[in-house]
Amino acid sequence: MISFENDYNTGAHPQILARLAETNLEPLTGYGADHFCESAKNKIREACGCPDAEVEFLVGGTQTNAAVISTMLKDYEGVIAADTGHVNVHEAGAIEYTGHKVLALPQKEGKLSAADLSSYIAGFYADETYEHMVFPGMVYISHPTEYGTLYTKAELEALAEVCRSRSIPLFLDGARLGYGLMSRHTDVTLQDIARLCDVFYIGGTKVGALCGEAVVFTKQNRPPHFINSIKKRGALLAKGRLLGIQFDTLFTDNLYFEISRHAINMAEGLKKVLEGRQIEFYLKSPTNQQFVILENERISELKKDVMFSFWEKYDENHTVIRFVTSWATAEEDLAALDRALEEYSS
Amino acid sequence: MISFENDYNTGAHPQILARLAETNLEPLTGYGADHFCESAKNKIREACGCPDAEVEFLVGGTQTNAAVISTMLKDYEGVIAADTGHVNVHEAGAIEYTGHKVLALPQKEGKLSAADLSSYIAGFYADETYEHMVFPGMVYISHPTEYGTLYTKAELEALAEVCRSRSIPLFLDGARLGYGLMSRHTDVTLQDIARLCDVFYIGGTKVGALCGEAVVFTKQNRPPHFINSIKKRGALLAKGRLLGIQFDTLFTDNLYFEISRHAINMAEGLKKVLEGRQIEFYLKSPTNQQFVILENERISELKKDVMFSFWEKYDENHTVIRFVTSWATAEEDLAALDRALEEYSS
Amino acid sequence: MISFENDYNTGAHPQILARLAETNLEPLTGYGADHFCESAKNKIREACGCPDAEVEFLVGGTQTNAAVISTMLKDYEGVIAADTGHVNVHEAGAIEYTGHKVLALPQKEGKLSAADLSSYIAGFYADETYEHMVFPGMVYISHPTEYGTLYTKAELEALAEVCRSRSIPLFLDGARLGYGLMSRHTDVTLQDIARLCDVFYIGGTKVGALCGEAVVFTKQNRPPHFINSIKKRGALLAKGRLLGIQFDTLFTDNLYFEISRHAINMAEGLKKVLEGRQIEFYLKSPTNQQFVILENERISELKKDVMFSFWEKYDENHTVIRFVTSWATAEEDLAALDRALEEYSS
Amino acid sequence: MISFENDYNTGAHPQILARLAETNLEPLTGYGADHFCESAKNKIREACGCPDAEVEFLVGGTQTNAAVISTMLKDYEGVIAADTGHVNVHEAGAIEYTGHKVLALPQKEGKLSAADLSSYIAGFYADETYEHMVFPGMVYISHPTEYGTLYTKAELEALAEVCRSRSIPLFLDGARLGYGLMSRHTDVTLQDIARLCDVFYIGGTKVGALCGEAVVFTKQNRPPHFINSIKKRGALLAKGRLLGIQFDTLFTDNLYFEISRHAINMAEGLKKVLEGRQIEFYLKSPTNQQFVILENERISELKKDVMFSFWEKYDENHTVIRFVTSWATAEEDLAALDRALEEYSS
Repeated sequence: MISFENDYNTGAHPQILARLAETNLEPLTGYGADHFCESAKNKIREACGCPDAEVEFLVGGTQTNAAVISTMLKDYEGVIAADTGHVNVHEAGAIEYTGHKVLALPQKEGKLSAADLSSYIAGFYADETYEHMVFPGMVYISHPTEYGTLYTKAELEALAEVCRSRSIPLFLDGARLGYGLMSRHTDVTLQDIARLCDVFYIGGTKVGALCGEAVVFTKQNRPPHFINSIKKRGALLAKGRLLGIQFDTLFTDNLYFEISRHAINMAEGLKKVLEGRQIEFYLKSPTNQQFVILENERISELKKDVMFSFWEKYDENHTVIRFVTSWATAEEDLAALDRALEEYSS
Repeated sequence: MISFENDYNTGAHPQILARLAETNLEPLTGYGADHFCESAKNKIREACGCPDAEVEFLVGGTQTNAAVISTMLKDYEGVIAADTGHVNVHEAGAIEYTGHKVLALPQKEGKLSAADLSSYIAGFYADETYEHMVFPGMVYISHPTEYGTLYTKAELEALAEVCRSRSIPLFLDGARLGYGLMSRHTDVTLQDIARLCDVFYIGGTKVGALCGEAVVFTKQNRPPHFINSIKKRGALLAKGRLLGIQFDTLFTDNLYFEISRHAINMAEGLKKVLEGRQIEFYLKSPTNQQFVILENERISELKKDVMFSFWEKYDENHTVIRFVTSWATAEEDLAALDRALEEYSS
Repeated sequence: MISFENDYNTGAHPQILARLAETNLEPLTGYGADHFCESAKNKIREACGCPDAEVEFLVGGTQTNAAVISTMLKDYEGVIAADTGHVNVHEAGAIEYTGHKVLALPQKEGKLSAADLSSYIAGFYADETYEHMVFPGMVYISHPTEYGTLYTKAELEALAEVCRSRSIPLFLDGARLGYGLMSRHTDVTLQDIARLCDVFYIGGTKVGALCGEAVVFTKQNRPPHFINSIKKRGALLAKGRLLGIQFDTLFTDNLYFEISRHAINMAEGLKKVLEGRQIEFYLKSPTNQQFVILENERISELKKDVMFSFWEKYDENHTVIRFVTSWATAEEDLAALDRALEEYSS
Repeated sequence: MISFENDYNTGAHPQILARLAETNLEPLTGYGADHFCESAKNKIREACGCPDAEVEFLVGGTQTNAAVISTMLKDYEGVIAADTGHVNVHEAGAIEYTGHKVLALPQKEGKLSAADLSSYIAGFYADETYEHMVFPGMVYISHPTEYGTLYTKAELEALAEVCRSRSIPLFLDGARLGYGLMSRHTDVTLQDIARLCDVFYIGGTKVGALCGEAVVFTKQNRPPHFINSIKKRGALLAKGRLLGIQFDTLFTDNLYFEISRHAINMAEGLKKVLEGRQIEFYLKSPTNQQFVILENERISELKKDVMFSFWEKYDENHTVIRFVTSWATAEEDLAALDRALEEYSS
């Protein structure tokens, strides 16, 4: 069975596994205080062009979002997000569990606009009763978004400008950051992100690691005793080496970027396959997630051979489904998909 | 440098790494819905002699304690624990973070007695103002305890009886469960634990895994939609395979028990080495943690060659330190420790 | 200065003050265990036609909403509310503070429709990823709504039917319930509400009391040890008599209904005054809140003599403002408003 | 029936009721933004000798403790309290509900010593694993304590000195502050408290008000947007006038102090009555709570005529009970108690 179900459906990039095996018996202090974590942090600082960045490793995305947001918000604040944002929809209320509201704004293809943001905040302070409302205390964006779309550099700058003018941090969820950076249709670099965001994370889980996300605080703004706050949230890994070794490997010899580029190449191939079979696109993204509209019957047939994700109902007879490539997608997978689509197209 | 610092200072048992590598490219559905997780759960059910047990995998111990306790307690309840219990001391307030109080009781060598428990609960309900106090809603014990000590079967039965008579669950933290089960000085089996506890977890992190704890609900009492509650707490691993494959390996051909037995053998050897060097014991435990009293000067010397943990100040000139063995401890480590102790003893 | 600012801008109905004075020196047990509370509960049960109802008194509305919602929701659930609902907008995130999400749905004039509700819940369960989303666990409506509008009996029945079919409770926020029940344009009685809702509260603060809301659990569904949960939330009043005496007075000789009817009569008079002065209505409600559109300049003038509330910006030159009547509004206030409007109309 | 059950068993001081009645129909803006609140705050500032103090009114003690502690603690901190402290025992876990641990220390007659406090904090930072433990972030004391005892000025100064040296705030729970200040056995003034504490509250509920506590932030340290945080906790009273008018009355013409002195006079009389009847004291306090040991049979008889509180079991045949005086206790009550004790003594 070939799988385009998501970008976390296989294990880890083989170099990561090799490195885990090589270093396996070296005794190391726990909780991230080992030299692999230190090395990985330095490589990330360098890649970000931000020598003073404070880097911390966490295990997964929802955990990272909740830990970052809840430690950076003040008691009276909530976090602004697109209504389609992962924190607003697919994290089981993890932000609210920390006692803070997600302030959901409308979006376009998963993206928040600086104009809407600015207008929302202005409206908040114009309301005479605002002391009884949740203060906008942070802006959360995902890049790539949940729809695989990307902010342009100009869009990011505009969002950052609104945040700066209101003195609230801009937080970028980079669960799939590699795929965004290696897109053929982006002018945003990792350095741009480090410059424009107050905090962001570089996703490992969806980009070749077994698990792990690297949070980067770019403005000397890591919450005090962040390790304690992570521990308090059940998010501190005893064998911190597992995260350090993985990120050290990913940020050695550009591995993170190369495997991301591979996924993008596969995604471009995927788009060609889908176009070649006259599949209607719901959203043709510049990254590794592609959304198409299929007849329900065809879906039933196709899923005998191919794993993919249901996205949402389109109409009575059609459904939006998602195909995703990753570092592990092979040319053969594309060819097999092409054959499967041929079979069920007639 | 040899290390007796703790039982999570190396990577994973080599069979686990091998298994991760073998299965690496098999595409699998995420979040624990894969066949490795299913297989691991079945093996654990069998090992527990509890075919109906509900098994869930989480990443680490603090996370597991917080998730289990906060989903099983009612709004008006807290959890009873020994005042030395991990949840009361070394989890950064993770239980309180979920809105529940830890009701700390006195202990002896880390163990809670059924008599103290029974008397505490009776006293609670005898107090006319109890509606204004935190109700005892669960009992948390660790086995082995934080001091490496073990409950006898009779002691566990007595605790379970108090819990049953008050209709509150007994939860056993088995972060080091393997070392407890393979101790030469225990009459408690895994089946006993499954029978006597309402919920417990089998520690992976400290017993040969990279990470992972297996929670076992023994009485058809898994909280409803537990997956959602785990996700809400940021504790749901996307690549659930990482946990499934590890526990499947640990529970194949008794690996979990054999590597635990090895650590116990090493601990017995460790005790002999320490005794042979006339080191005074603070607490000679039946499991893999040993606590001794050393002169501060000797500690300064010893730590040039050996990694170990400071436990607590003993008096002005002495400190309690902890030596720990694990699945990865080798005979050579014991010999090297012996030589190091010889060197600094004169 | 005359005031139409809100319905909590004066003290308490004089009969309440008199009763507090009469009973002042009678020593009573605290925390609601006094005979006035018991008597008030019985009168409320009778007025609701629900002899088995469990009644509890709390101090204010936000507190009541948070206590009821957070004790009735399960860990994995959130509360559905109109996006204009008080819990979603004007309670400073009090629901999220308890760890639960408000699931905001679109509304019309503050009202949630059964069709939208039904469709939302159906959509939730149709989504393959729903285990990662916040479960709909309760429906919150306000009656009158924040816009002074009212559900019809048929609308309430339809909402209740959806809730029943999904086994989730229907909670009605009756902060201004008296004004809803005494409206000239309603077919909903207190008995209907008790029959259709699983829990609701009868507002005291906005209907003649110094403070206090009476929560009515209609289906033997009061959360266990609710007093403890209230205490835990800082919501248990030591001198419970203050609530008991007030509600006992309000539910003696129909006082609650009569003072509500008076406010409605004043609201009908208010509408006539506003119409007579050709003021444009933004929303002409059947209860005690009326929303009109005024030129900004005229507002500046008017507020020299009259207190009212700014609601929202209408356009560059106009603002929506709110006039509210209460049990304390007098005919003279209407006459004075009429004169003030005359003065600033030319 | 005469009552010595507690100091909140009657209504409010008659001058308060009179003032509520006089001001009843004056329309006022809600939520504490009225001139009575402002006037009360000024009078409190003056009484405290602290013209810059920030004063806020809340409804009850548990609510006040939770609001103050949870807004002043940082994420990684807990609050130190005597193990008998109200926040640790009788508030249903309200502090833990806010996500923070109460760090309970031993006490003597309800009082925390500076030596124990200092030693605890020193020990915390000496522990190598302190990043995994809850940081001491605030010190909570009650004055009078739950046992009616009082800190001396020297003791308060010593506690304040430890707090200052560790940069953590000292918070004094003054639920019964009036009775402490008017004790015949104290050298502590309200000005001393304002000088030594970073925040404290002046109790109204137990000192003549229907409800209400006045929090005083003495060091320009009120948490930002505190009104929002209060609202978020369901603790913001709509009719803030109820609190403002009460405290304005209490702090006019020394009423607060005079009614407290009356209670102390009654308590001294009470002690004489109890001594005269050869009742054994468990703890003879310098304030308005007295604890005595009675035979269980005598208790059964006595409670037919007198209301008092059970405190704790003393031995099989004896119980500690509490008698409390208040502003409302009359000479006749003492005489009646004396007669009742005579009757049941033979």
